[in-house]
Amino acid sequence: MNIAILTFDGYNELDSFVALGILNRIRDREWNVKITSPSPTVTSMNGLTVQSQQTLSFANSADVVIFGSGILTRKIAIDESIMGQFKLDPMRQVICGQCSGTLLMAKLGLLKSLPACTDLTTKPWVIEAGVDVVNAPFIANNNIATAGGCLASQYLASWIIARLVSREAAKEAIHYVAPVGEKESTVAHNMSVISDFL
Amino acid sequence: MNIAILTFDGYNELDSFVALGILNRIRDREWNVKITSPSPTVTSMNGLTVQSQQTLSFANSADVVIFGSGILTRKIAIDESIMGQFKLDPMRQVICGQCSGTLLMAKLGLLKSLPACTDLTTKPWVIEAGVDVVNAPFIANNNIATAGGCLASQYLASWIIARLVSREAAKEAIHYVAPVGEKESTVAHNMSVISDFL
Repeated sequence: MNIAILTFDGYNELDSFVALGILNRIRDREWNVKITSPSPTVTSMNGLTVQSQQTLSFANSADVVIFGSGILTRKIAIDESIMGQFKLDPMRQVICGQCSGTLLMAKLGLLKSLPACTDLTTKPWVIEAGVDVVNAPFIANNNIATAGGCLASQYLASWIIARLVSREAAKEAIHYVAPVGEKESTVAHNMSVISDFL
Repeated sequence: MNIAILTFDGYNELDSFVALGILNRIRDREWNVKITSPSPTVTSMNGLTVQSQQTLSFANSADVVIFGSGILTRKIAIDESIMGQFKLDPMRQVICGQCSGTLLMAKLGLLKSLPACTDLTTKPWVIEAGVDVVNAPFIANNNIATAGGCLASQYLASWIIARLVSREAAKEAIHYVAPVGEKESTVAHNMSVISDFL
């Protein structure tokens, strides 16, 4: 199971790394979760530089693709040297957008007439791209999912696990990362958000 | 305001970067939030390599120190080449532990008789170090705070903001990162967890 978390310069740390941490809880299977970028390193909106783990071509063959978010997304959306590299297919891939990542999915024609989630800052640009934005943290339809608000990344990650492994595996992953003393309530709330889309 | 997020090899991404993202929401003041490490780069428990932004000496002069968590904490706790570098002082510094970071605080004698929070895996080692571990996501006493469970890092971050700026600023930061459609409930819950300690 290859999972590409697309992470660009100006990225939002929560939007890429919360999903990375939760998806990596699946340890008993061959899950290969990689920060995937157009350059060998990428630097976040807050100046944090990470080494990319895969090049963009990895996304084209991955089982799951997550478009991360950041402050430069509108620039990336019109950068043909990046956008032209994607050859994604929602028939064979699970494709997800986190916050402004939804804008990149819209620009690639991946959302078509589907309603989508995004963050409040990106919302006008996603609407301008012709997408119906819903006031919710998470929405999915078949292989296409989107989440809005940094901490909604936990819903995106648990939905991916529930869809590809099981609800039980998703519950275990969220239980692990949930605050102590709030583990059961966090798992229950998480499942209530994603259950309609499983 | 200098804030050191201590991040070691084997680190847990959520435990360092959720706090980093939330604390960096304070943009109208001179907040300087830095990933602080013993080496120029550190690699996470899931193989993610980041460039450190400060050396350990930064922590000794910082206004706020957060001990991050990871899978190598028990090794770090007995590594004198790292532990011997810390000259921290809870009289002049806010000092926080996230998950297994609490073990490092215990080893440095920073917790004394204070009850503390940690993750379920680290709990036995913190108890062995003589600390009373509580079944809660967050606890604070004067300048010492600890959090247990990766996603409890949002409580640690908002408590730091509320203590050093204002409750309003903490609410704004959490509102920004909260899931769309759950912003008010997330802020209210967050404040309910930290209010007893302000």
